[in-house]
Order: sequence, then structure tokens, then C-alpha cells
Amino acid sequence: MEIEVYFKFILTFGLILLAARIGGELFERYLKQPPVLGELVAGIIISPFALGGLIHDPIILNFATVHGAFGLHEFNVMEVISEIAVIALLFVAGVETDVGAFLKQGLTGALVAIGGVILPFTFGYFVTMWLAPGAGIAGWLFIGAALTATSIGITVRILLEMGTLQTRAGTTILVGAVIDDIIGIVILSIVVGISSAVKAGGEINMAYISLDALKILAIGFAVWFALLIIGVKLNKYISRFLLNPFKKSGTIPIFALIIGFIIAYLVTLVDLHPVVGAYVAGLMFAATDEREDILDKTRPVMLFLAPFFFCYLGMQVDTRLFWGGAILAIILIVAAVLGKAVGCYIPARFFGKLSHAESMIVGIGMVPRGEVGLIIAGAGLLAGAISRDLFGAAVAVSLITTLITPAMLRPFFKMQLEPVTETDKPSHQDE
Amino acid sequence: MEIEVYFKFILTFGLILLAARIGGELFERYLKQPPVLGELVAGIIISPFALGGLIHDPIILNFATVHGAFGLHEFNVMEVISEIAVIALLFVAGVETDVGAFLKQGLTGALVAIGGVILPFTFGYFVTMWLAPGAGIAGWLFIGAALTATSIGITVRILLEMGTLQTRAGTTILVGAVIDDIIGIVILSIVVGISSAVKAGGEINMAYISLDALKILAIGFAVWFALLIIGVKLNKYISRFLLNPFKKSGTIPIFALIIGFIIAYLVTLVDLHPVVGAYVAGLMFAATDEREDILDKTRPVMLFLAPFFFCYLGMQVDTRLFWGGAILAIILIVAAVLGKAVGCYIPARFFGKLSHAESMIVGIGMVPRGEVGLIIAGAGLLAGAISRDLFGAAVAVSLITTLITPAMLRPFFKMQLEPVTETDKPSHQDE
Repeated sequence: MEIEVYFKFILTFGLILLAARIGGELFERYLKQPPVLGELVAGIIISPFALGGLIHDPIILNFATVHGAFGLHEFNVMEVISEIAVIALLFVAGVETDVGAFLKQGLTGALVAIGGVILPFTFGYFVTMWLAPGAGIAGWLFIGAALTATSIGITVRILLEMGTLQTRAGTTILVGAVIDDIIGIVILSIVVGISSAVKAGGEINMAYISLDALKILAIGFAVWFALLIIGVKLNKYISRFLLNPFKKSGTIPIFALIIGFIIAYLVTLVDLHPVVGAYVAGLMFAATDEREDILDKTRPVMLFLAPFFFCYLGMQVDTRLFWGGAILAIILIVAAVLGKAVGCYIPARFFGKLSHAESMIVGIGMVPRGEVGLIIAGAGLLAGAISRDLFGAAVAVSLITTLITPAMLRPFFKMQLEPVTETDKPSHQDE
Repeated sequence: MEIEVYFKFILTFGLILLAARIGGELFERYLKQPPVLGELVAGIIISPFALGGLIHDPIILNFATVHGAFGLHEFNVMEVISEIAVIALLFVAGVETDVGAFLKQGLTGALVAIGGVILPFTFGYFVTMWLAPGAGIAGWLFIGAALTATSIGITVRILLEMGTLQTRAGTTILVGAVIDDIIGIVILSIVVGISSAVKAGGEINMAYISLDALKILAIGFAVWFALLIIGVKLNKYISRFLLNPFKKSGTIPIFALIIGFIIAYLVTLVDLHPVVGAYVAGLMFAATDEREDILDKTRPVMLFLAPFFFCYLGMQVDTRLFWGGAILAIILIVAAVLGKAVGCYIPARFFGKLSHAESMIVGIGMVPRGEVGLIIAGAGLLAGAISRDLFGAAVAVSLITTLITPAMLRPFFKMQLEPVTETDKPSHQDE
């Protein structure tokens, strides 16, 4: 009876969430690591290439390998659900952003973010070109892009746990990570655009690609900036015309999240990735009076769905390819750490006039790639731009950079830090 | 670019939720009707057979017609998501149920369910035999079977929205609907068996079919009852061993909902429908100390997803088939309403000793056929036992019975209802 196919998808949905929850719990409780890492590792363990492969069923945990791993000949139901999950995640992240502080601390943070994008991207691009020449320009671009991102969630979590979110270094990291995320996501859109152009024509016309990239960048920033300004300047009108009609029925948060999904699609029409739209849609609502209400009712949806995304990502790691790409992964990890640390240290130290210890904290604090790196690598895999072993290497970078950051940060936190509230007198002390 | 397929699914997901929200809002505000009806009607309006058909895209709002409306040859992504939505709905309904009251109303509910199966089945069988003699015994059986089902989803939603889930009448309906669903699925198995026997040899081995049906019935009830007893009697152990490990990380509600999805699948192994499992899983947690916490965090997930299910249901109605079988449909609707209302009123009034108003609420509350009627009719269509216009008539029954129920219920809700907590003194009041 064919209806059983649907039942098996339900089981798979449940099993992925279950594995994610258990993995997240174990990592948090016994390894004192963010749950997101446990979700990812759980995914690697239950993937069709590991435990899942032991279940001899074409769907249960093995859907990814139905009719060729990521061929769309057969729609991958779980892929659509994971897209829905990551859109919910980015939407809530957008709503949670403090838009005011975001704009005020913008310049230093922007410079740190840009420094933290240029170096890792360059390193990632050339390391991949050197060690995986067969991946082609699209593959090199994707790995470069995957190294640019900074995980806001993981960084904030670490800063909070160390009680240093309110320091000058902490604020700089926060703003830098937010801007970095946006840049990373815009880069993702550009890279997706280029890789599809490469796939379509075969001919690699650098002038055309540069022009195309510039176009995407311009349109992307314009759309993004427009939505941001709408959110910041016109939030009263958003409340009045968009949200208020749903006040009486108590469905403002649901309606806001639906708008997030619609905008997530709409930005794809100008070649941005849906997650950019979801994040900016969230920002749109971040300055409204309904913010707390929206967060209160959409966060549970996000908390339920987001682990699905990370576990699903982990499931796409083919562990059998780990050793084949081990050298590449190790060199990429070194490139990722050095690129971020140096790329962020320099602007913080010389433009932001932070102390050496503070600048080191900023540099190292920006190292974890976390979920955004995974989003970019996952998009590359989906677009067919990077192979499974390159994807595995990118996942290793996300995983390892996140795992080692707390230990690297600890020595610098022992040094004296400037509280952010006293930044009016621009101090230039070394520790 | 194939990745756009995914983006289009995201858009469709967003559009369905948007249409549902607007439809629900309009119905609630201007027609003073439960939002669920607005969601259904919104679905009919945006279906591939109406507005959606104007969008010349194979996916956006038109996914249902890809490779045949109900053929499962191509997996329907949206179908899986709608299953997830209805499971979340039934899980939350289960958690919200007052388990003590549920057990107290068990016998009455069972009798209500049986009464609500016998009459509609008989009516449906003979009306079809009279108006569509060419359909043959298999066709008559399928239409009869389609009339027996009660949509727990729609009934629960209406009860929740009217705040009457906790009343004695509400609990009786719930018990009746759950048992009804089990009976309905057993009947479906019987009917499928008979119709395939008719198609194959013409010889109908009633002994074999009866034995098979009896087996499904026994196993189904045993599993369902076991889960119910576990929830009621062993809730302290559920808290201690299943939920407490997730207390510190605040993920008890998410974990409970995940368990709901797993159990929803597990019951399908004994031929029960997933929604029955989801509901019983919810019941398992309804008696735990963590109940409020679970409700608080899973209700937003349900409120976000449930409208998708109802709108999606509406989208499967082919409005063009309405006129062909109009007379049959109208008479079937009358038969369906009368059969359920009378068949359920009598046990409620005379065995359950409910008041006239309460018994009317039970009788009318059991009227909506919703998704289970559609599942049975769809199975008949798939098996070739019923024709397209008979199918259209069955869809009309599901739809109209659902549309008219809230309006029929309203007058009786204005009368005094017994809270279920005071059932110790078996009242026998007329309003």
C-alpha cells in the first residue's frame, strides 16, 4: 500500500529530530559544547553512509540516496523541510537582532567583518584550488565562501557563558558577526549565481562573472538595505498596516513568520538566497512594538525545526570520504583559523584602537563557522557545485573551528578588558 | 536551475499559510465562523482547479496535479508537510485532553462511535445503490465507508476554538472520534479486501475478509489501549525516565512532540492511522507534571502548522466535478448528516445520559468527515472501485459536512454545558 511511503517520511522526520535532540543534549551536558554541534554529529552518525545504511529501507533515513543523492528527479521531501527549518531559524535570528546597537557600532564591526571575510575567502579559495583542482571555480568559490561566515549563535553563546558580552571586545565581535553573517549570505548568493552560470555555459568568462557578481552584490545590498531601512524607519507603518489586522486573533507572530517565508522566496528573484530574505524579514520586525510577542511565539517553532536542519546537514556528510579529504580538511581548518584571526585582529587593533588582548579576543571570537558555514556548504552541495568530499571538509571546518574556540579564547579573557560603556574615551592600552 | 524547484516549494508553503491565515481571519472576523473553515475555503480558492490553475507553473500551487491528483507516483512534498501538521495538531489535542474525563467518557464515546458508524454506512450504501446502480457492490461499499469516518482534526479544532474541549460533550466527541477513526480504518481494510476480491475473481470470501478485519480491529484496540493505560497509570515514570533528562536544557516539550511523531509512525505498523498515534501520544503526556510546559511550547508549533493542513485539504477539491454528481452529492450529504447526528445522539442521550443540548453537540460534532472521508474515497478511486464523479460526491460530503457543522453547533453551545470535572454526579438535565 503506497500510503506507507508517507508514513515512512513521518518516521524519518521524527527520527532525525530525535537523534538531533539526543545529540544536542549529550554535547551540552557532557562536553559543555553548543547543542548545534551535537545535532550535527548526530546527523553524521545516523546518515545513510553510517548507521542509516544498516536500515535496508529506501526511505527511512536513506531518502538522501533515493535516485542519486541530490538529483531532483525525485523530490527530496526532507530537503524542503530542512529549507523551511533554516528559514525559520534565520527569521528568528533577525527578529532577535538589536537593530539600534547594530547601526551604532556599525563601522568598527563592519571593518572587522570585512577583514574577516577577505582573508578566509582568499585562503579557502586558493587552498582548495591547490589541493582540489578538479573542483573547478565553482567549488573553490563555495569553499572560500564557507570559510567567510561567522556563527553569531555560537559566538554569542560563548561570550555569554564567559560573562564578557558587555565588554568592548564582546560588542565588536557581536556586531562583526552579525555583519559578517549578512556578507556571508550575500556571498552565498553570488557564489550560487556564478556556479549556475558556470554549469549552464561551461565557458568561464571572468569579466562576465565579475560583472554578474557585482550586479548581485549591488541588487542584494540594495534589497537588503531597503528592507532594513523599512524595518528601522517605517516600523510604525509595519505595525499599523501589516501586523495590527491580526492583533485581535492573536496571530501576529504567525503572520510575521509567514511574511518571512514569502520574502525568503521573493529575494530569490534577485538571486539572493532565501535565508537572506528570512533574516532581513526578521530585522524588519525587530524594531516593532510587537517584537517580544513575535519572538515569544515563533521561537518555539524555530527551536522545534532548527535541529532538523543541522542534523539533516550532518546526514549529508559521507564519513567514508573523511580520510580521503583529511589533508584538505586539516589545511582548511588552519587557513580558516588564521584567516579569521588575522583578518579581524588588524581592523580591531588599528581602526578600532582596541588593546592587543581585546583584538585577539575579537580575532579568535570570530573563528567559529557554525551554522552559516554549514548553510553555505549545504547550498553548494545542493547546487552540485561541490562534491561530497569537499562538503565533508567544509563540515569539518565548521565543526572543529567551533570546538576549539572556547579553549583558545580563555587565556585572553584573563587579561583586563574595557567595559563597553566607557568607550567615549578611546583607550589604547596594551594589557 | 533545479534549485529553484526548492524555492518554489518554499513559496508554495508560504502562500498556503498566507491564504489560510487570511481566510481564517476573514471567516472569524466577518462571518463569525471558526478560522478552520476559512482555511478550507481559502484552499478551495487557491487550488489547482481554481485560482492556482491560472499560475502556469508546475509547482507553485499546482503541485497536486503533478502526475495525477492523488497518484502517489511522484511524492507530494506538501502531502508530507500536511501530515506533519495534522500530527502536531492531534498531539497537542491529546496533551490538552483531560485524561481522567477521557476514561470516564470511554464507554459512552465507544457507543457514540459505533452508532455513528452503523447508520451513515447503511445510508451511504443504499443511497449509492439507488442513485448509482452501475457502481456495483464495491462502489456502494466505498461510499458507505467514506460516510462513516469522523475527522478528529476538524472537530478538535472547532472544540478548541470554542473553548469547549474540556466539557463533557467535548470529551465524548473526542473519544467517539478517536474510536471512530480506528473503526473507519478497519472498515477501509474490509472494503479494500472485498473490492479487490470482486475485481479479481468475483468470488467474495467473507470468512477470510471478516477474520482479517477482526485481526486489525483487535490489534489496533490493544495497542491504542496499552498506550492510553501507560499514559494514565505510569505518567510518573514517563516524567522520570523520558522527560526529566531534558529538563535542564528546557527541551522537554520538543522531546515530547518528537515522541509523538515516533508513536504516530509506530501505530501504522498495526494498521492504525498516524493521527491516532499522535493523539494517544499526546494523551500519554496529558497526565504528567510537565503538561503545562509541553503545551506552552508545542502549541505555537501547532498553531503555525495546522492551518497548512486544512488549507491543503481544501486544495484537493476539484470544483469542476461538483455539478456532475450534484444530486447524488446533495442526498449523500443529507444522509451523512442525519446518519451521524441520529447515530451519535441516541447513544449519547440514552446510554451516556447527556442532556439534550449535549447530545445534540455530540451528534452534530461528529458530522464533519474531513480528511478520513477523503482518505477512504481516495483509496476507492485509486483501487478503481469508484468513478471520478462518485469521488467528487464523496469530496463534497467531506467538505459540506465540515462547512455546516460550526453553524449547526453554535445554538447548542449557548446552552449550559456540564464541565467534565463534575461528572461524578451523573446529571440528566435538559437545558
